[in-house]
Amino acid sequence: MTRTKNSKALVVLSGGQDSTTCLYWALDKFGADHVSSVTFDYGQRHRIELECAKNVAKHAGVSNVILPIDTFAALGGDALTDAEIDVATELNSDTGLPNTFVPGRNLIFLTFAAAFAYPRGIEHLVTGVAETDYSGYPDCREETMQSLQATLQLGMETEIEIHAPLMHLSKAETVELAVRLGALPAMSLTHTCYNGERPPCGRCPACELRAKGFAAAGVMDPLDELA
Amino acid sequence: MTRTKNSKALVVLSGGQDSTTCLYWALDKFGADHVSSVTFDYGQRHRIELECAKNVAKHAGVSNVILPIDTFAALGGDALTDAEIDVATELNSDTGLPNTFVPGRNLIFLTFAAAFAYPRGIEHLVTGVAETDYSGYPDCREETMQSLQATLQLGMETEIEIHAPLMHLSKAETVELAVRLGALPAMSLTHTCYNGERPPCGRCPACELRAKGFAAAGVMDPLDELA
Repeated sequence: MTRTKNSKALVVLSGGQDSTTCLYWALDKFGADHVSSVTFDYGQRHRIELECAKNVAKHAGVSNVILPIDTFAALGGDALTDAEIDVATELNSDTGLPNTFVPGRNLIFLTFAAAFAYPRGIEHLVTGVAETDYSGYPDCREETMQSLQATLQLGMETEIEIHAPLMHLSKAETVELAVRLGALPAMSLTHTCYNGERPPCGRCPACELRAKGFAAAGVMDPLDELA
Repeated sequence: MTRTKNSKALVVLSGGQDSTTCLYWALDKFGADHVSSVTFDYGQRHRIELECAKNVAKHAGVSNVILPIDTFAALGGDALTDAEIDVATELNSDTGLPNTFVPGRNLIFLTFAAAFAYPRGIEHLVTGVAETDYSGYPDCREETMQSLQATLQLGMETEIEIHAPLMHLSKAETVELAVRLGALPAMSLTHTCYNGERPPCGRCPACELRAKGFAAAGVMDPLDELA
């Protein structure tokens, strides 16, 4: 990472556990005065995510801009943006991917984040994507992120860098990182549940993965105190 | 290009001269039954482009889907989507780019086109971007397109290919290609003018470039018959 004293970073903040951890990672690396966040309103069925992102950013003392993306809903056909499709617990037998897969979602998020960063002189993007536990999502892999970074640098003529500090961490290690960075209190403001419930449903794949991570790290999830 | 008998292609159709030529290139390469088109309604100040795209697609006998993108307008600050900014004839002295530069516009268009193509089994994207005459736009260069293709293949786990048949053609050569492909009659339906005028203003950089191309090819622009 080439980082000068005044480097600015933009965190893609979903309002979930991982991107919140990344926000605190960015605060630690770049300093509070140099971090801002962007959240995408892309028609996700859980509007609560947007509120969580706002609350997390406020708690952390960083700005948060919500950018709309109406295109995914127009594309249709996935369980994250189409209210008529239930979240499946099985992988799609044709594609081997979860039906929450929105093709290229993180490519779009990071490209728009780069377009937002460009006129503001921000050269560092921070994303919560991770390979571990998420191998079903090809747009979360390190190889994809490296290729996207090269594409953004070429396509916008910038030196922009993509940071994915959770890329090779297990969920338990992500929890441990959050504890070290002082991000644990903010975790009570986050949202993970695929079914959009708060307190979380505890049964969907996202809830189960989160619970496993906290259990393996031996840390109490502040969200559980809501239940 | 790996092309099997039933390969399907999706043309990113703006309603302009270049993408119209690309549509006819795709018809020639893939056959009328295997070509469809997508047009982005991204808040361009010239709504006439959408109508032109529809008319060109209809004339060519291919389907046309208009996908909305409300994000660029929310980003703001460029002359193509912000009605309060005039199109400048000079390059920006800081960035060396025209003020019609929307950072990453073609990256976004092609990524959404790939997301549209993905569930439909379409493995070929066709775009009118070109290096020649457009060196101000880094998202139009071959190196960028190659990098983006790699990113899309990794991020969506597809074999999708990006074709940019005009990449190394001059404007005159593009006109000559259009003539060879039988695309000339459709040119009367296209739109080029940055000022959104029809008949075209003839004075903006886009009109001047178009006129030069037709003149150099020794071909009458069907649009001029409107004037």
